[in-house]
Amino acid sequence: MASQVDSHPELTPGEQLAVKWYPPAYDIRVESVPIPTIQHRDDAIVKVKLAGLCGSDLHIYRGHGGFQDPLIFGHEFIGEVISLGESFTPNATDRPSLYPTLKVGDKVVSAFTSSCGECHFCRVGFTSRCVHCLLFGIPILPGGQAQYVRVPKAGGTLFAITGPLTTISEPSLVLLADILPTGIYAALQVLQHPKIAPVITGVAYPFSGWTPLARLEGVGQLEVGDRELVLAVVGLGPVGVCATIALLDMLASTNLSYKVIAIDPNESRRLKMQAIYEGMEEKYKANGQFKVEAIEEGKKVVEGWTNSLGCNAVLEIVGNNSALTLALSLVRPFGLISSVGVHQAPPLPFTGRECYNKNVSFDFGRCPVRSLLPVALDLMKRREDVFGAASGTGGGEAEVGGTRSLVDKIVPIGEAKKYYEMFDKGECGKVLFDPWV
Amino acid sequence: MASQVDSHPELTPGEQLAVKWYPPAYDIRVESVPIPTIQHRDDAIVKVKLAGLCGSDLHIYRGHGGFQDPLIFGHEFIGEVISLGESFTPNATDRPSLYPTLKVGDKVVSAFTSSCGECHFCRVGFTSRCVHCLLFGIPILPGGQAQYVRVPKAGGTLFAITGPLTTISEPSLVLLADILPTGIYAALQVLQHPKIAPVITGVAYPFSGWTPLARLEGVGQLEVGDRELVLAVVGLGPVGVCATIALLDMLASTNLSYKVIAIDPNESRRLKMQAIYEGMEEKYKANGQFKVEAIEEGKKVVEGWTNSLGCNAVLEIVGNNSALTLALSLVRPFGLISSVGVHQAPPLPFTGRECYNKNVSFDFGRCPVRSLLPVALDLMKRREDVFGAASGTGGGEAEVGGTRSLVDKIVPIGEAKKYYEMFDKGECGKVLFDPWV
Ligand SMILES: NC(=O)c1ccc[n+]([C@@H]2O[C@H](COP(=O)([O-])OP(=O)(O)OC[C@H]3O[C@@H](n4cnc5c(N)ncnc54)[C@H](O)[C@@H]3O)[C@@H](O)[C@H]2O)c1
Ligand SMILES: NC(=O)c1ccc[n+]([C@@H]2O[C@H](COP(=O)([O-])OP(=O)(O)OC[C@H]3O[C@@H](n4cnc5c(N)ncnc54)[C@H](O)[C@@H]3O)[C@@H](O)[C@H]2O)c1
Ligand SMILES: [Zn+2]
Ligand SMILES: [Zn+2]
Ligand SMILES: [Zn+2]
Ligand SMILES: [Zn+2]
Repeated sequence: MASQVDSHPELTPGEQLAVKWYPPAYDIRVESVPIPTIQHRDDAIVKVKLAGLCGSDLHIYRGHGGFQDPLIFGHEFIGEVISLGESFTPNATDRPSLYPTLKVGDKVVSAFTSSCGECHFCRVGFTSRCVHCLLFGIPILPGGQAQYVRVPKAGGTLFAITGPLTTISEPSLVLLADILPTGIYAALQVLQHPKIAPVITGVAYPFSGWTPLARLEGVGQLEVGDRELVLAVVGLGPVGVCATIALLDMLASTNLSYKVIAIDPNESRRLKMQAIYEGMEEKYKANGQFKVEAIEEGKKVVEGWTNSLGCNAVLEIVGNNSALTLALSLVRPFGLISSVGVHQAPPLPFTGRECYNKNVSFDFGRCPVRSLLPVALDLMKRREDVFGAASGTGGGEAEVGGTRSLVDKIVPIGEAKKYYEMFDKGECGKVLFDPWV
Repeated sequence: MASQVDSHPELTPGEQLAVKWYPPAYDIRVESVPIPTIQHRDDAIVKVKLAGLCGSDLHIYRGHGGFQDPLIFGHEFIGEVISLGESFTPNATDRPSLYPTLKVGDKVVSAFTSSCGECHFCRVGFTSRCVHCLLFGIPILPGGQAQYVRVPKAGGTLFAITGPLTTISEPSLVLLADILPTGIYAALQVLQHPKIAPVITGVAYPFSGWTPLARLEGVGQLEVGDRELVLAVVGLGPVGVCATIALLDMLASTNLSYKVIAIDPNESRRLKMQAIYEGMEEKYKANGQFKVEAIEEGKKVVEGWTNSLGCNAVLEIVGNNSALTLALSLVRPFGLISSVGVHQAPPLPFTGRECYNKNVSFDFGRCPVRSLLPVALDLMKRREDVFGAASGTGGGEAEVGGTRSLVDKIVPIGEAKKYYEMFDKGECGKVLFDPWV
């Protein structure tokens, strides 16, 4: 199919700029590499408009990803489809129905992992473990911190921005590739969990959730005092901020009373979260309390709020064992740890006895972005008070870099090395690369 | 209150027989010890009729419990209330309503941990982590493998067997103290979990469960092929058998199609499970398949059944790291491990990366028996095909020791040492001690 490729004036034709990481660690180079081409009938080539730098890149950047070979970074990108494989020709048969709808010229946001749309996991909604799932930005699938990127299983992976969605600003669209759906995922795992169900439904365990049991006599309705949710968010990087926004929005949509504490040792990260909260409309805050604290202060707040029982659930959004240990210390017996941090080679920092003794539940893993994208778009459209100021919904230019902005900076791709260093140290918030300036 | 204490003819008055464990390990002695007395206004003294030997005793027996002092074993017992603290006098005030209903002379089954019935955890239904929770059979709370036992927080802990429940045989009643509720707990954690919800509800994630999200357009109904549950039970000791019975009963009450594999390396344990399954009425088996296998064969069955995807969930009912490792290997991405095994000092045998890469969920911990007792009684009454043959419901004598019996033997307490040795080696099934012969 038609293919329209621009090379940078200073590059050889067929070459493009990309952010490359070299092992063992901390070695970022912006280099000229071949422009990718269609390799399979389900592929698309996307011309990248903006690409995000993410906390997940840091694990590999720091050498904890277990990779021996250089790779092109970037799993968060938006852009334009410039070329499509044969599956997308109008008369292609034997493809799932969504395939033929993608067209050259479509503006798209990509999920940060590819997913086919056809397998069991895709159908059930667990797209991030599609049997064809690949993460962008690993040796066998070069990432999107580049001018062009090849997208496998493009019909399942890409989401076309059409109709009313075209009014959303481009920086906001990048948040849809990963961090906003991931934040929603972390929050939803909490509110959908059976250990939270007694508080949500007002009915004591075991009749609190969906149940294959007959409802027996004498099932007690809970009193108001047992229907308060106390929750902690551990980690306020860009994903933690999104998780907190999603959590507070979901809580506002219920009539539960709640207390939420968000914890991060980094002051600038706390200030950003506080500013975003202060910008929220009052009606979204009416049923609960919210605090932002450093680690030790946060522990004390939880003790005070819960009479030392601990939180009903903790969202772990850091990706190291110190955060998991903090999470276990904060959670009450029969509590939940919703972990979306990307964890590496070390063993989990828990003994079996600790887990048994706390009756703790865990959810680990990667966000099924493609399934949650419609939910994330809905949140973004509804919550102008957060996303308008934060990254520009409602059309027009994004207000990037303000105290309430979810996107801190848009910088030329050539400055990638410097911004990896700053982001690694927590010296900046969410950074997007523009590969064309 | 009135107290009526019989000492064994061969013992000094005020003394009783009890099963004592001595550190470091494997040292069981049946000894004469003082008969316990009321120590607190909420206490009861129970004259023990039958007491169970349980897989949980084995952890301490083997020296893995971390105890330095001798203790009286036994957390599963039924008996008769012979003495009550002041809280149970008819005009006692400031006690929860259930307290005054317990009377001297009541026939009772005890939950294997004490629970107050008043605190947050008790009210919410998570009684096994009551703020006053104590396990029977530890140094500070002598257990029920004895002639008499002191029960703290008796109003919350004991369950009186009255009315229609009096037709249940005594061996069956002992199963209610721990193993049947624990089996139900393991099964219910699976069927109530949000990662199973798409299969149960037929709706894809994230709209599959209770949700604080608006139901957006385009939520796909799942096709029949994605609505089959494939589940594994790891461990077929007495608790694993109860879990399998509970799981199959719950599945029969839904209209789901399912495949369940139960795995144990011990052949006699597998034969017992197979015999119980074969004795079940056909109507309870109509929607699914069930198999019992040793470990390697079990793995192959799961591969074949699921085209190597793995199980939707695994019930881990063993209590060691080899079982947890097997469970993780059997479960599919976005699957659940419902662990009721009692785990000890070793760290969990998983790296953070393994957990992230499988998007696995875990539930750990102790069964809230007191909350599940009514459910267990309901199951026992309904499933005459299992419990009638297995331990005698329907009144009359229990048929103990048959191939389909959940109770293998009732033996004199004086033979405790021998039966600890046999049970430890998996050479017998569930054993109950009679402290009066
Ligand atoms: N599950 C998924 O699908 C998914 C998707 C995106 C990102 N992630 C992961 O989410 C995590 C966060 O991503 P990010 O972009 O916000 O990263 P980030 O590195 O910018 O943020 C991490 C934050 O955690 C804070 N922190 C460090 N140790 C802490 C502790 N012990 N307690 C509290 N806070 C602590 C840091 O100060 C920092 O602000 C990373 O592990 C990332 O890989 C997962
Ligand atoms: N969570 C709770 O509230 C609770 C309550 C009661 C018992 N328990 C625990 O449940 C577990 C089982 O109790 P039980 O009385 O049935 O004990 P048990 O020791 O009789 O049974 C354990 C079974 O597991 C089998 N087994 C051992 N390793 C295995 C492996 N790798 N794979 C599969 N099977 C394996 C053994 O052959 C045995 O049949 C114990 O850990 C016990 O402490 C927990
Ligand atoms: Zn990311
Ligand atoms: Zn797929
Ligand atoms: Zn037991
Ligand atoms: Zn209590």
